[in-house]
Amino acid sequence: MTKERLYLFDTTLRDGQQTHGVQFSFPDKVAIARTLDDLGIDYIEGGWPGANPTDSSFFAERPKTRATFTAFGMTKRAGRSAENDDVLAGVINADTPAVCLVGKTHDFHVTTALGITLDENVENIRASVAHLVALGREALFDAEHFFDGYKANAPYALECLKAAYDAGARWIVLCDTNGGTLPGEVAKIVGEVIAAGLPGDHLGIHTHDDTGNAVANTLAAVDAGARQIQGTLNGLGERCGNANLVTLIPTLLLKEPYASLYETGVSAAKLPGLTRASRALDDILNRVPLRSAPYVGASAFAHKAGLHASAILKDPTTYEHIDPASVGNARIVPMSNQAGQSNLRARLSDMGLEVEKGDPALAAILDEVKRKEGEGYSYDSAQASFELLARRELGLAPKLFDVERYRVISERRRNAKGQIVVESEAVVTISTREGARTSYYKNDHASDMMDDGPVNALWQALKSDLGPFQDGVADMRLTDFQVRITNGGTEAVTRVIIDFQDDAGRDWSTVGVSANIVDASFGALLDAINWKLIQGGAV
Amino acid sequence: MTKERLYLFDTTLRDGQQTHGVQFSFPDKVAIARTLDDLGIDYIEGGWPGANPTDSSFFAERPKTRATFTAFGMTKRAGRSAENDDVLAGVINADTPAVCLVGKTHDFHVTTALGITLDENVENIRASVAHLVALGREALFDAEHFFDGYKANAPYALECLKAAYDAGARWIVLCDTNGGTLPGEVAKIVGEVIAAGLPGDHLGIHTHDDTGNAVANTLAAVDAGARQIQGTLNGLGERCGNANLVTLIPTLLLKEPYASLYETGVSAAKLPGLTRASRALDDILNRVPLRSAPYVGASAFAHKAGLHASAILKDPTTYEHIDPASVGNARIVPMSNQAGQSNLRARLSDMGLEVEKGDPALAAILDEVKRKEGEGYSYDSAQASFELLARRELGLAPKLFDVERYRVISERRRNAKGQIVVESEAVVTISTREGARTSYYKNDHASDMMDDGPVNALWQALKSDLGPFQDGVADMRLTDFQVRITNGGTEAVTRVIIDFQDDAGRDWSTVGVSANIVDASFGALLDAINWKLIQGGAV
Repeated sequence: MTKERLYLFDTTLRDGQQTHGVQFSFPDKVAIARTLDDLGIDYIEGGWPGANPTDSSFFAERPKTRATFTAFGMTKRAGRSAENDDVLAGVINADTPAVCLVGKTHDFHVTTALGITLDENVENIRASVAHLVALGREALFDAEHFFDGYKANAPYALECLKAAYDAGARWIVLCDTNGGTLPGEVAKIVGEVIAAGLPGDHLGIHTHDDTGNAVANTLAAVDAGARQIQGTLNGLGERCGNANLVTLIPTLLLKEPYASLYETGVSAAKLPGLTRASRALDDILNRVPLRSAPYVGASAFAHKAGLHASAILKDPTTYEHIDPASVGNARIVPMSNQAGQSNLRARLSDMGLEVEKGDPALAAILDEVKRKEGEGYSYDSAQASFELLARRELGLAPKLFDVERYRVISERRRNAKGQIVVESEAVVTISTREGARTSYYKNDHASDMMDDGPVNALWQALKSDLGPFQDGVADMRLTDFQVRITNGGTEAVTRVIIDFQDDAGRDWSTVGVSANIVDASFGALLDAINWKLIQGGAV
Repeated sequence: MTKERLYLFDTTLRDGQQTHGVQFSFPDKVAIARTLDDLGIDYIEGGWPGANPTDSSFFAERPKTRATFTAFGMTKRAGRSAENDDVLAGVINADTPAVCLVGKTHDFHVTTALGITLDENVENIRASVAHLVALGREALFDAEHFFDGYKANAPYALECLKAAYDAGARWIVLCDTNGGTLPGEVAKIVGEVIAAGLPGDHLGIHTHDDTGNAVANTLAAVDAGARQIQGTLNGLGERCGNANLVTLIPTLLLKEPYASLYETGVSAAKLPGLTRASRALDDILNRVPLRSAPYVGASAFAHKAGLHASAILKDPTTYEHIDPASVGNARIVPMSNQAGQSNLRARLSDMGLEVEKGDPALAAILDEVKRKEGEGYSYDSAQASFELLARRELGLAPKLFDVERYRVISERRRNAKGQIVVESEAVVTISTREGARTSYYKNDHASDMMDDGPVNALWQALKSDLGPFQDGVADMRLTDFQVRITNGGTEAVTRVIIDFQDDAGRDWSTVGVSANIVDASFGALLDAINWKLIQGGAV
């Protein structure tokens, strides 16, 4: 049987950017677009060119993608032609292969929010879509408030859709803008739209999670015949968020009836990258990943109930609806770490550490990782700290130096001119085979009113005198610093992840955890130095 | 028209306790039971008496509730009578008015996990339920893996249900134990169960969120005729969690067709307590509340898109599907560089600051917001810092005190026993109308090897002596702390957002930005104190 094609449209960079507290930078947007493109999403909506400086520069220098890059805007305003609407021109000038224009379909919004006649609104839709088509662009029409509009005045709502369709829109996207529509209504209304003459393979669905049904409403629309799905990574989006593509994709690929009926641009081979894609967005947002997230959450395959855990050991399908590896996730069974050993050996081998099957060090490493994760450590992105941990258990990481003491001071005071200045200084004492060494750092740029803080002061002091190891760290550079408050046991602790580079082009990341942010950072700095020295042949 | 009664069954204290990382204490369980009872939940499942010491002591001293208190356990084992099964006896001895027993209904589980015959399992169900009924208890049967079992062997799964029903079970609860069933299947199968002779008003539904459909699956079962809903506060539960009652309750009370068809034990008068109930559970778990949670999340009624924000001012129904006050939540129109003067006036009005249209302070506020955002500040979630900024421009934020100086030290050293200890201390000097005051803080818990770091030390010092303002800050508590490295101008800077609470139930958030993380935090602490003092009438 030939499968029907479902198209995935991602709006993380547009509706997702409307998430309360989210502000993407230009590099953030590029990184997200690459993640989406690699996964196999069909359309990437990049933002609203002309609406703000970040979006405008993103479109000016957008990454090349296999996915159809899409600019968002609104239909032309009344009283001017599509050719002469400067807001619409700003969108078109971004020169994307596809353009998605939002327009009203709810009579109340046309008269209340826009203050124009119902006919003027229909003409705005028609003329805007026709203009895009004449320019050779793929046109999408986001039918704002469609479900509410249909319930209030079905003939008018349908007239708006038909205006867009007849003008040549490739997709008419039915939007549940306020998120209040329930699955039963979505199924019924999408069915009626198709019965009224709009073909399902030209219909999209755009939902919000205000009743916790964004995913179910999307599936209901697909069941009724819609063939384009709009959503975001991790369900970002205005208010409660949009439909979560990270949840929908595995359901469409792995679960019946969807797996047999449809195909998407995401291949089974790409699906194991899903967990990483989800975490990548959280990293960019510096958010703690939601443990309970369907499919990709850290707890999604955690079997805590005693009855479940013992049955899982007999047969995983007893308490798992899919294989966690298929989405790049992993099972957690608190009483057994046996499952992890083959993965671990592969990971160690990647680092050049070959360990025999059955070596007791493997279990010791997994136990130590589990113990540290319980304290708040995370080794997903801190590969260098993980390697050091493994080397210690394998006896391959001798102690190079000890830190006897550090002391760091940050001070805010008024200088002689009465100006407020902030200064930090640090003293570090280490001991090596050759004896103790103390180093000191203070920013001596007297003109600076503000320094780079206690962690930088510690770092500068630490690397200024490492005795016999000094040459080995001279080319280390700190490139990024992430801080996250997390739970270690019952207490909130600070997790710091620091990225480094050196002149040989190596990139590495380390992690430190403590209730004290300075000490957490110091732990990550020490790991980074030790890893670098080991790579440089200090062992 | 008479409404049909839907019964709400909460399993936060049982399935919710299976959440990865969640462990309730005895007082936690009492507090949660009181919250549920006050809300109007019909059944409170307290745990599994005999399964662990906390559950046993909770049942021994359980709070008096209007709700039907329910003990959880499993059907008797094969090879002994219901009267002589010690595990079942442990459950019955908890002496609750209702008892819910889980049993197998999936043939594969009967033979694989239990290793008994299909007939033995049916007899275990029948005899266990009959035993409860003979003792005068209300009996509930949790049909484990029912949906998977029905798909594998429908006649057998139905035979299990009928055994429980014929033995006198008040409720037969259809459990989607592995969480893999989709809404369309739930609707179809529940309909077939009813057609097979199990009356809908004896059927319950128990779902998990492994495909993001726990809420939708619950609604699908109700649509098909089930009349008891099992779920948890905030969707706690094994793996991805159970159906979230905090999401379902407002949908059932406020949204059609449910509002007209059904009534629950939760009255419209109790509904505004829902947001507080949700936050109370997060407090117990020391979790940051999920901002995007339907109905009760801090962002659930946050309107960030410029078009939405301006329409909301004309008529809130343009972008809100319900009135936020009906669930005890509130609208937020966050400030961002897209917001115009009318949004700003509305936002100020919400803060009790009435500013005339055209007041030049409005433009000054927007300019200042833009300037600060350029430095790396973000006011989306730091509403209190925004209010202070606006008050300064409006001349409504007189300077209460100046910070002359602070000095904070973090030190790692070895103590007399050779153990590594980390300590922080802070000195702060402020000046008020009454002169300068210097305060000092050092963690004096000599047994602690690790302190809470420099920011905590500064905070403790700062609030320990504010002179005339001391009483005004005594009940301030720091509840969350977020750090992000961002770009301020050309340099990377640190943005710190801190959340606070006080005894009056106020929540507020402030922001600080600096290259020095200590100084960024200090800025947020100062804003928080100033905001709190202004709310307390210091101005």
